[in-house]
Amino acid sequence: MKQTMKQDSGRLNDPRFAAAVEKVLESYEALGGINHIEGYNLPSRERIVLIINDFEELIFPGYYDKEQLTRRNVRYVVGQRLARVHTTLVTEVAQSLLHTSRCDTAGKAMSRDEALNRADEMVLALIENLPQIREVLREDALAAVEGDPAATSFVDVVLSYPAIRAIAAYRIAHYLHVQGVPLIPRLITEHLHSKTGIDIHPGAAIGKGFFIDHGTGVVIGETSVIGNHVKLYQGVTLGALSVDRAKLDPQRKRHPTLEDNVTIYAGATILGGETTIGTGSIVGGNVWLTRSVPPDTKVMVDPPYLVYRNRRTGDTEHMPMDFSI
Amino acid sequence: MKQTMKQDSGRLNDPRFAAAVEKVLESYEALGGINHIEGYNLPSRERIVLIINDFEELIFPGYYDKEQLTRRNVRYVVGQRLARVHTTLVTEVAQSLLHTSRCDTAGKAMSRDEALNRADEMVLALIENLPQIREVLREDALAAVEGDPAATSFVDVVLSYPAIRAIAAYRIAHYLHVQGVPLIPRLITEHLHSKTGIDIHPGAAIGKGFFIDHGTGVVIGETSVIGNHVKLYQGVTLGALSVDRAKLDPQRKRHPTLEDNVTIYAGATILGGETTIGTGSIVGGNVWLTRSVPPDTKVMVDPPYLVYRNRRTGDTEHMPMDFSI
Amino acid sequence: MKQTMKQDSGRLNDPRFAAAVEKVLESYEALGGINHIEGYNLPSRERIVLIINDFEELIFPGYYDKEQLTRRNVRYVVGQRLARVHTTLVTEVAQSLLHTSRCDTAGKAMSRDEALNRADEMVLALIENLPQIREVLREDALAAVEGDPAATSFVDVVLSYPAIRAIAAYRIAHYLHVQGVPLIPRLITEHLHSKTGIDIHPGAAIGKGFFIDHGTGVVIGETSVIGNHVKLYQGVTLGALSVDRAKLDPQRKRHPTLEDNVTIYAGATILGGETTIGTGSIVGGNVWLTRSVPPDTKVMVDPPYLVYRNRRTGDTEHMPMDFSI
Repeated sequence: MKQTMKQDSGRLNDPRFAAAVEKVLESYEALGGINHIEGYNLPSRERIVLIINDFEELIFPGYYDKEQLTRRNVRYVVGQRLARVHTTLVTEVAQSLLHTSRCDTAGKAMSRDEALNRADEMVLALIENLPQIREVLREDALAAVEGDPAATSFVDVVLSYPAIRAIAAYRIAHYLHVQGVPLIPRLITEHLHSKTGIDIHPGAAIGKGFFIDHGTGVVIGETSVIGNHVKLYQGVTLGALSVDRAKLDPQRKRHPTLEDNVTIYAGATILGGETTIGTGSIVGGNVWLTRSVPPDTKVMVDPPYLVYRNRRTGDTEHMPMDFSI
Repeated sequence: MKQTMKQDSGRLNDPRFAAAVEKVLESYEALGGINHIEGYNLPSRERIVLIINDFEELIFPGYYDKEQLTRRNVRYVVGQRLARVHTTLVTEVAQSLLHTSRCDTAGKAMSRDEALNRADEMVLALIENLPQIREVLREDALAAVEGDPAATSFVDVVLSYPAIRAIAAYRIAHYLHVQGVPLIPRLITEHLHSKTGIDIHPGAAIGKGFFIDHGTGVVIGETSVIGNHVKLYQGVTLGALSVDRAKLDPQRKRHPTLEDNVTIYAGATILGGETTIGTGSIVGGNVWLTRSVPPDTKVMVDPPYLVYRNRRTGDTEHMPMDFSI
Repeated sequence: MKQTMKQDSGRLNDPRFAAAVEKVLESYEALGGINHIEGYNLPSRERIVLIINDFEELIFPGYYDKEQLTRRNVRYVVGQRLARVHTTLVTEVAQSLLHTSRCDTAGKAMSRDEALNRADEMVLALIENLPQIREVLREDALAAVEGDPAATSFVDVVLSYPAIRAIAAYRIAHYLHVQGVPLIPRLITEHLHSKTGIDIHPGAAIGKGFFIDHGTGVVIGETSVIGNHVKLYQGVTLGALSVDRAKLDPQRKRHPTLEDNVTIYAGATILGGETTIGTGSIVGGNVWLTRSVPPDTKVMVDPPYLVYRNRRTGDTEHMPMDFSI
């Protein structure tokens, strides 16, 4: 440690180190884009994480709390938690509004007061909507309990299942996204993507009773539309057909629609804004779909053959892959 | 910041905000299931993470420690660490036992003392078993060193490989699961799922010398049985055939068996409780299997053709995919 | 809590617990490999994470900072941050050099001073190279803005996209790897693997304007070579053909080469050191390639058929899978 200190101070008087510092500072001047000095504050990833944790405790009281919730303290704990989340989220939302308005060369920049008032309105609307969001999430958790033989109880699901956390955060982020909050909705869903491997764009519209089993590798694109009681497995992609960005109308629907009671098995890929999977249909594992599927249809890969080779004799045998599930 | 404070207190006297708080509280009363107030404590996700970290340091002493371990201090550091992990884990296990006994409408609820005594027995048994668990994990780490050309040394593997952390936590969780500890084993494996993208259910039975390369997207289901010296690559699923939950006997084996010295390449999916991959067999990438494979067999997808299209001339050519590895 | 304390002290005088502690200590003596007592310090995972965070703030100033950067404070904040990262990283690098030299039974062990001087040189070189690394990362971020219709702005990408963080850390790790720093480069990339599901080996060589969309499940092997303006989607593997470790020349190129302007769609697997994807070529989803592809070629799976079964009537119909994207 002493050694370290010596070194350090050594470095600070070291012309080579000092020159390196200057070069880094020059590169901040030189390069637009990746430096953001005096770029009016941006929303803070760290504070967004704290806000997400508060929402998780507000949505599932008594599950993740540091302090025990009782009938006696619940009113005060919850009131204080809502006040805190309101205050911090208003600040973050106001900053993203200011940032975006200042980047938007067209419109005139927003005033700090105007941004705070808009943010206040947006966050309050979200808080007022929490009871409805909780009802939907309850259906999501029930879908997990019913949909997964390994789920031992409702408590088990809420405590340990990654999908529940990812979907809860998505529902908060989606509500903010719909109200036009910039930057923050994506920060929220990307935090859960990092925690769960489930990548849900805040723009997607997803019905109630939604369950994702295992979840790692799932991608749900910005303009996806998902009905009620839909179930996905790990590695499912709801994506866009590649399009020349230039040709693209940003409002255009690029991702598929899944109607009610659809199930999509592991590793299936469904692409395109016109692709619709009809009510009650089932898409088998590894299927790659770029066209619509009618209701009540089961789509599987037509079994390609498997080759079995005996590693000693070298004899080979063919048998069809069996995608039936 | 001052502004923020103003706002906040503003909010607290704001009838609209106060009404929102009441609505949230009402929704706690209304909705069963997702609120858990006075639901006797649940195990704490945060404390489980601390316990996992202690076990990692106990299993691999000197690798992740904050303080330097020496022959002089090791007895005291380890004794204190074991005492801490024992105390905290006993508390968590007792809480899950109490929680579960109170939910179990059949049997009469367990007393707090009874829960603590049972938890004490279970945790002590785990600690007594640590030397055996370390021996198995040593074989796991050796398998990584031998199985991955990119592994530079044993130290490299233990320091950086996600699979080692996931397997170590699984072995702790499995030991608790087998003793009948509720909730906590899954909390442990889901924490590592979040860190590594490797989803191992604590119920799976896995032999020694087990290695998972890269690991992201691997799913190992609750009733999987895996022999010794098995190697998996990223994106491998050992899953269940879909079953109507109602028809399901929870004890039934739903996931496959891999015998000794089996290798499964990236993206392969193996499903079903009756599916057994025989000793020494190899399953190629992207294979989808729902039936058993005899010993010493290599199974590959029968090459579907690839289409090569020249992007300027538009000429196309066909060639079989080559799954040989 | 009182109860817990009682228990705890109870345990410390408990012969059974004391015996368990002794058994764990004996297993430390018995098992080589997984214990590392007085194994001279290893680099610390925790400190590496702090160092990564410092580099993220140095590369993208004003994006992730806890404190606001202004034209007035930037020189001092950055100078202090560079001094800190230099000091801590030199200590960690020196430790891995010492560790490795002591394991290397051939050469004579390095002295602590020698290790510190070498480490100092390596870290200073990295800091001097930061401006160049920032230029390349700017191109990477631009590629994301242009390559993803869902990207709303440069700020959006730098704030929320996992690929940018994974690539930034990889570029730092690669620079250290090329200079011969042991252990630490892999610790850096595995930390980002854990955060993003993107597994890039520090040994890979990757050009500018590199983008990975979504990213979960991507694996880029040690000897991969990637040109400029390459784009990958989630679940892409650049891997090795399986080789008997014994037969292996560690220097040998085991992973593929992607030339400039190549795009690889979701779930494709490309294997082998001799496999080269030519300039401007496109590899479709789920393709499995072990041979080279000429320039300007689009490779897709030759559509296997899909089976559509009506779930009420049971009628089935066949249609080719459409991989066109």
